[in-house]
Formats: sequence, structure tokens, C-alpha cells
Amino acid sequence: MVSVHGMSASGNCYKVRLLLEQLGVPYQWHEVDTLGGETRTPEFLAMNPNGQVPVLEYEPGRCLPESGAILYYLAEGTPFWPVERLARAETLRWMFFEQYSHEPCIAVARFICLFLPPDHPRRADLPRLHVRGGEALDVMEQHLAAHDWFAGGHYTIADIALFAYTHAAADGGFDLGRFPAIGRWIARVRAQPRWLPMPSK
Amino acid sequence: MVSVHGMSASGNCYKVRLLLEQLGVPYQWHEVDTLGGETRTPEFLAMNPNGQVPVLEYEPGRCLPESGAILYYLAEGTPFWPVERLARAETLRWMFFEQYSHEPCIAVARFICLFLPPDHPRRADLPRLHVRGGEALDVMEQHLAAHDWFAGGHYTIADIALFAYTHAAADGGFDLGRFPAIGRWIARVRAQPRWLPMPSK
Repeated sequence: MVSVHGMSASGNCYKVRLLLEQLGVPYQWHEVDTLGGETRTPEFLAMNPNGQVPVLEYEPGRCLPESGAILYYLAEGTPFWPVERLARAETLRWMFFEQYSHEPCIAVARFICLFLPPDHPRRADLPRLHVRGGEALDVMEQHLAAHDWFAGGHYTIADIALFAYTHAAADGGFDLGRFPAIGRWIARVRAQPRWLPMPSK
Repeated sequence: MVSVHGMSASGNCYKVRLLLEQLGVPYQWHEVDTLGGETRTPEFLAMNPNGQVPVLEYEPGRCLPESGAILYYLAEGTPFWPVERLARAETLRWMFFEQYSHEPCIAVARFICLFLPPDHPRRADLPRLHVRGGEALDVMEQHLAAHDWFAGGHYTIADIALFAYTHAAADGGFDLGRFPAIGRWIARVRAQPRWLPMPSK
């Protein structure tokens, strides 16, 4: 059985959990206390030298980090990874967009608001994160105004990757009411078989 | 013939150029003046609503953005994209690592040093970027001390993705002399058939 080493309240970890549930793949979950420094122990760094969750232990002692790579690994050969080359490239296009232009604003704003004390100096980053995160949401809104899904015409790991932090963007101070197409897409994702909510903090 | 819309001095664009050259795929290059605002025109935003280079125009008027997705699209079915599922996942693992943990430090430090005036306030970011970029180089060094390549036991798009900004890291103030395994890997990449250098500024 595969194991996931993750922090339940992390959107990057939730992506992996959601896909495993939707695939019906049995798994063990090992909670990692990232805030308590558990990703910096020698044991954890042996699994992922980059010191981040999630990590998929696909065989005992054999580990794959990076949520996007884990999603691909689990989805290959299933309907969550499209059949056509261009649709696959579009799936990756949105997954790279998420990790480069979306997560560093929207997930980081959520982290600051949910996990740091109100007087923490990183709160000064929020205005900049709200501008850039809003631009990422604009890009999504434009796509979703014309498409039900991000790639391949159906629900894929690109939707899972983008859903995780988008649907929780209000935690970081974003107003999703400005993005009606995103709101309808969030409802479509929630209606998928075996969908389960992201654990709260 | 495919077209690339890119900025020659950008490492993300060089990745695409290098792969096209190594595949022997004919292409047209359309230089985009990103510093002059050309990625913000309506024409460019119609190709990539996220306003970034590179963009692959794989058919006239049909465009794919995100360097990682373009590399995948061009490499599928060639030796640059491994055959095995796990090796493919490892390829993506390093490509996501590059875009999330490496490029935002090492490429950004290079941008600040090469393209912004010496008195620009973003120079204040350099110490932080050097710490975090150094951690990314440490992760690469550890892997390369035990492996010739990043995934699949041979040269793949993971190597191309990581080579672009790593080999130019000194432009951003990193001392590659501290990373001997990276230095040997850079030499191996440079020795690959049809390798070509990254255009300078």
C-alpha cells in the first residue's frame, strides 16, 4: 500500500489525498508537523532533500516528492490524465501555472492569514500577494468563462491541482465573489464522484 | 513549422530553443521584448493570458505557454521523455522543483543583477534569494553526487529545465565553485549532441 507523508491542512497535500480517494486507491496517511520542524529532520530529508510535503512513498522506503509529479504518477493510465498529447501538455500547462503563478500568491496569503500571528511582519506581503494572486484568478476566470474544465474537456489532475488553493482562497483574503466562472467550476469539482473536502486547519 | 515567441536572454525560453535544436525540429523564433512591455499587449495576451514567455505556437494561431508544458509536448515520444512511468514522474518532479524552488531564486537573482539598475530597490532581495537559491543548488548537488542525470538514467527534459538557469547562476551572484557535482553535470550537458549556448543579454 502506498503512503503519503503530508500535512492535512496543506492544499498541496490535499491534492494527493483527493486524487487517491477519487481513484479508490488505498493509502496510509502519515501526518507531518511541518510547522514543528518535522520536514527538517534527517529522516524526512532522506525522503525529500527539499524538505517539503507531500511525499508519496510508493514502495516502502522509495519516495517521490512534488505534488505535481505525484499527481501525474498516480493519474497515468486513468481518466485523470488525458489520452492525447496536446491535452496532456495543456494539463501540465495549468499545473505549472498553478505552482509558479498561483500557489506562491494564493497559498502563501492563506498561510500568512491562517498560520502566522496577527502582528507577524510577513503580513506586509499581503497587498502584493493579493494583486498577483488576483491576476492568477483572472487568468483562470477567463479560461473558465469558455470551458468547463482546464484540459482535455474533462476533469483531470489540472483541476485537482488548481482546486486545492483556489476554493480556499478566501482564507487568504481573496474575494471569490468577483469570479463567477470560478465559482461554477468549484461547484462542478465538488460534484465529482468521491470528492472529499480539504481538512481545515 | 512551429514558432516560439520568446526572449532570447531568458532561461525559460532557452530551454525550448535547446530542445528544438537537439530534436532537430525546424522552428521560427519571434523575439518578444518583455522588458518593453510586449507581453502585455492584447496580441500577446491572446496567446498567453498569463503574459509570460515562452509561448509555443504549435499550429498557426494555436498556442501553448509554460516552458515545462512545452518541453513535455515536444519531448513526448522522443528519448528526452523517459519510457517508464516512474522515470517520467521523476522527470516532472525535477521540473516542478525547478519552477517552484529554483527558478524563483536563481533566475530572479540573475534578472536583478543583469537587467535592473544598480540602485534598484529589488537589490535588497538578493541576500534572501542567495540563501534560498543556495538551498536549491544543495539539493541538486546531493542528487548529482550520486547520479549522472536527474531522471531515468539519461539526459531528459529535466536536465534541460535545470541546466538553463543553473549554468548561468553566477550571473546572479552564486558561486558554482561550491558545487563540484553540478559543475561536472554542466560539462556533461554541454557535451550533448547539438547543444548550443544560451544567448547572452
